[in-house]
Amino acid sequence: MGLFSRDIKTMHDLFVHQLEDIYYTEVQLVRALPDMADKASDSQLKQNLLLHHDETRAQVRRLEHVFDALGITMKAIDCPAIDGIIEEAENVAAEVSDKSVLDAALISAAQAAEHYEIARYGSLIAWARQLGRADIAGLLQKTLDEEKVADEMLTSLAMGRLRAAC
Amino acid sequence: MGLFSRDIKTMHDLFVHQLEDIYYTEVQLVRALPDMADKASDSQLKQNLLLHHDETRAQVRRLEHVFDALGITMKAIDCPAIDGIIEEAENVAAEVSDKSVLDAALISAAQAAEHYEIARYGSLIAWARQLGRADIAGLLQKTLDEEKVADEMLTSLAMGRLRAAC
Repeated sequence: MGLFSRDIKTMHDLFVHQLEDIYYTEVQLVRALPDMADKASDSQLKQNLLLHHDETRAQVRRLEHVFDALGITMKAIDCPAIDGIIEEAENVAAEVSDKSVLDAALISAAQAAEHYEIARYGSLIAWARQLGRADIAGLLQKTLDEEKVADEMLTSLAMGRLRAAC
Repeated sequence: MGLFSRDIKTMHDLFVHQLEDIYYTEVQLVRALPDMADKASDSQLKQNLLLHHDETRAQVRRLEHVFDALGITMKAIDCPAIDGIIEEAENVAAEVSDKSVLDAALISAAQAAEHYEIARYGSLIAWARQLGRADIAGLLQKTLDEEKVADEMLTSLAMGRLRAAC
């Protein structure tokens, strides 16, 4: 017997496992983002993180709709990956005093979280289609599109900092 | 005093910190990829993971050139994020017995690692430019391009599985 309460036997099991993983991820990010926004000095970065906090709360509700659509109980399972990404962000932020350097570290940390989500939603969408659940794939695609836009906005902020520094 | 041996005061410090982080990441992936390839059933996936193992070893050497170019001692620092991603991959793989489901889980795990690297190299390249080190940005860009291709190849494999299943 493994670490989880049930073995993963089918693609449906794998899908549900990853759904519980990304649900945990989104809930952890709802907790982490206000703290990151609080640490940010650049007003655009602060606003961007707060905006993404609202978006993440809506993404949590969208995942709850997916659990409903599958007729299964909503559940979050520990996800060492997002815990590690958040832990690393907190460790680095605690080491930085300069405001501009801290903003750069916060952008980088937020992009690591975005890319983790982009990878996870990408798999979930492919698996939902494989399982014949185009309705669920469509819901998850909305979130994936939002995560990609959030990542692009963070890249724009990083590039703006770069132009200002040159 | 924080968790690290030195505080991060400048963009150069932040760059070096993240360089040490990605160096640890690449070394951990050199260790993890053969095990993932060993678990894969699909011959294309197995070949893809082994190919990326060779590529990752070359990426480690490229990072060693970057340490040299900066005139600093090569060092790896613990990176809870990649530890979490690998731990999660191992946990899930241990739960799956069906070969096809395991292959899907392995593709997803490899893509989570790729996206972590894509995010980290993206920040490092922007910071190298900001620090006036176009030479280092160029070296890191080669790796970023390879990571993106590796991710696209994994997406193609996932899509091929999807077409086969429909």
